[in-house]
Amino acid sequence: MTSPANHVSVNGRTYRRKPNPVVVVCVDGCEPEYINEAIEAGQAPFFASLKERGTCLTAECVVPSFTNPNNLSIVTGVPPAVHGICGNFFWDPETREEVMMNDAKYLRTGTLLAAFADAGAKVAVVTAKDKLRSLLGHKLRGVCFSAEKADQVTQASHGITDALALTGMPVPSVYSAALSEFVFAAGVALLARDRPDLMYLSTTDYVQHKAAPGTPAANDFTAMLDRYMGKLDALGATVVITADHGMNAKTDALGRPNIVFLQTRLDAWYGDGATRVILPITDPYVVHHGALGSYATVYLTGTRERDEVAARIAALPGIEAVHTREAGSARFELPPDRVGDLIVVAERLSVIGTTPERHDLSGLDAPLRSHGGVSEQKVPLLANRVATDLPERRWRNFDAFDLALNHLP
Amino acid sequence: MTSPANHVSVNGRTYRRKPNPVVVVCVDGCEPEYINEAIEAGQAPFFASLKERGTCLTAECVVPSFTNPNNLSIVTGVPPAVHGICGNFFWDPETREEVMMNDAKYLRTGTLLAAFADAGAKVAVVTAKDKLRSLLGHKLRGVCFSAEKADQVTQASHGITDALALTGMPVPSVYSAALSEFVFAAGVALLARDRPDLMYLSTTDYVQHKAAPGTPAANDFTAMLDRYMGKLDALGATVVITADHGMNAKTDALGRPNIVFLQTRLDAWYGDGATRVILPITDPYVVHHGALGSYATVYLTGTRERDEVAARIAALPGIEAVHTREAGSARFELPPDRVGDLIVVAERLSVIGTTPERHDLSGLDAPLRSHGGVSEQKVPLLANRVATDLPERRWRNFDAFDLALNHLP
Repeated sequence: MTSPANHVSVNGRTYRRKPNPVVVVCVDGCEPEYINEAIEAGQAPFFASLKERGTCLTAECVVPSFTNPNNLSIVTGVPPAVHGICGNFFWDPETREEVMMNDAKYLRTGTLLAAFADAGAKVAVVTAKDKLRSLLGHKLRGVCFSAEKADQVTQASHGITDALALTGMPVPSVYSAALSEFVFAAGVALLARDRPDLMYLSTTDYVQHKAAPGTPAANDFTAMLDRYMGKLDALGATVVITADHGMNAKTDALGRPNIVFLQTRLDAWYGDGATRVILPITDPYVVHHGALGSYATVYLTGTRERDEVAARIAALPGIEAVHTREAGSARFELPPDRVGDLIVVAERLSVIGTTPERHDLSGLDAPLRSHGGVSEQKVPLLANRVATDLPERRWRNFDAFDLALNHLP
Repeated sequence: MTSPANHVSVNGRTYRRKPNPVVVVCVDGCEPEYINEAIEAGQAPFFASLKERGTCLTAECVVPSFTNPNNLSIVTGVPPAVHGICGNFFWDPETREEVMMNDAKYLRTGTLLAAFADAGAKVAVVTAKDKLRSLLGHKLRGVCFSAEKADQVTQASHGITDALALTGMPVPSVYSAALSEFVFAAGVALLARDRPDLMYLSTTDYVQHKAAPGTPAANDFTAMLDRYMGKLDALGATVVITADHGMNAKTDALGRPNIVFLQTRLDAWYGDGATRVILPITDPYVVHHGALGSYATVYLTGTRERDEVAARIAALPGIEAVHTREAGSARFELPPDRVGDLIVVAERLSVIGTTPERHDLSGLDAPLRSHGGVSEQKVPLLANRVATDLPERRWRNFDAFDLALNHLP
């Protein structure tokens, strides 16, 4: 390895290289209150210690407050307008197909992980679900694997051959808290063994979709998180913890989901086929949320007056705001060519569905909690070092590497 | 008593009279999730039963989402623009004084409780804190007392002489869950003994300011609520349960309050005395929230350009929206002469303070939870009867008596 430069520039930002390992952790669905309540319950001593010896900011994630747009923002340092990933699905009006966006061909810029690796840094990425792996590992010369498929790694594809042996854990179920624990256990083992310069760990929000902050299952999850963060800290890493999005109850007082079936409404108003509602939360793993989030985008395939449609949607109970493609893309920094004619955001306690028959809620064994809207935009941005001379600015979760590399001692 | 008419009209609405007792309960600070989580924990069988045999709407309270404006809206059936009570304090620019608004002389319309009593109905009101009693009991010929001063009642002032003996409970501390329990115990005893035609019970949010939905203290409170609601139900009353406002965490991930010290900012920008920030949550009982809520109103005493001040405030981290007096009063249905030149609403996880030295946070023994903003506007509207032919409209908490009297069998 040649002697590395002191800085790496990527996507318009310059990052310092640091002598000690830096770990950025994205805790899926980590509403700030999960941590705060676990501290109150005495189950998070590492987090509690950060009041004295760390940094705590309340940052804003990308809207739609979904997993992929935010994970990609964190590892590129820029919003979806630049990197192109604004959901799991978009509608291709040319081919008239719903297109899944979890292939790296949809990524419009490189990651800072790949840039650091190209500059000679040792980089490792561990993610919970495999759906994120090919995006996060795009052109990355380093370690990159998922807990979900830790038993199917190859040196050529994943930069590692013994991912499963790292932890001593079996491959966890994709619907389990253990899937996230595997990520942390692997991260700690990699840090101890390989001392990567830069590591990115990203979990799944299976627990957060079911358990409210302060309830036993949530506190147990946060206690697990706390133990592993303490281990990363004890191994000498600079650790920055953030989230892809928050999480809120989406139910009425009796626990029944508040769902706006938007395609049903639009079909009743304008007829079948005149509009198409896309729910970019939809992915192959929907058992725990029924593909119900607080964000949708609407394509008008007919000749409808857009402002009139927007006003009718905005008047529906449970809808917080409707933006045109142009206004919404500007406000949320999204790629206009991958959103519909309208962007629809639901209120904090509501979600948007298409039609009742297209949502299988049979897997919801707890009252629905979900995300996607502006109401889930506030996320923690924590570090195990005291930041010096922190600028007063709108901090984003995709400033996590900037904070870690440029603002911490 | 003369034979009563079948209807009572007050403040532009007509209410049916019903043969069986009607009880409206305002649970202070009842974010819908408190009920939902207690059901999940198996601690709220009465509420759980309402899925089958009741009605559950998600309604909107009045903004500012504070106790007095909403209690007065519920008992008058109209918003503060009509009844005049838009907080605990307003600033009188003539006398240059902060004026407390808990005197009935500030009430601009009569209550439906008084109107029913005048029409011959037997009416009873029990409230937790005494601060609400004179407003709720304005010109009411009936029973009206507070748990806080249940030992100081007279027939002339409160319409009852044995308020304390009703329950067998001692006068509770003003900072306790027992203060609310006293309200329910008294309500059940009055219902059993006197069979009032109309009863209004209003609690205090001491527990909700401290405990998140689903945590042990919150579930215990909701279990207590559930038991008493079950007793009212078993006694044959039509019961409608709503809230004055919701409740949210107002802290960062480590549990420290997110406070925008607005007077400090304004003084730094424009000098001392150029502006005056009023926090209408302030009242004599601030130990549990430090007078910190998510709503403020600002008077400009100098000649400052209002739009410029509004824009600077709106750009502060933690601020959700700033409205002019005219726009804010129209949007939130407030009396323009009792709000400042600007209305400021904080984001869900933030509160507004004046200056650090004017807020005593020493009584906060748990991470701050509070209300006041649009983020606390969603409240439950529940009934123990199935509503028939419910109109699709924007339901408000101040439709509680309308729901009970006009829409339930």
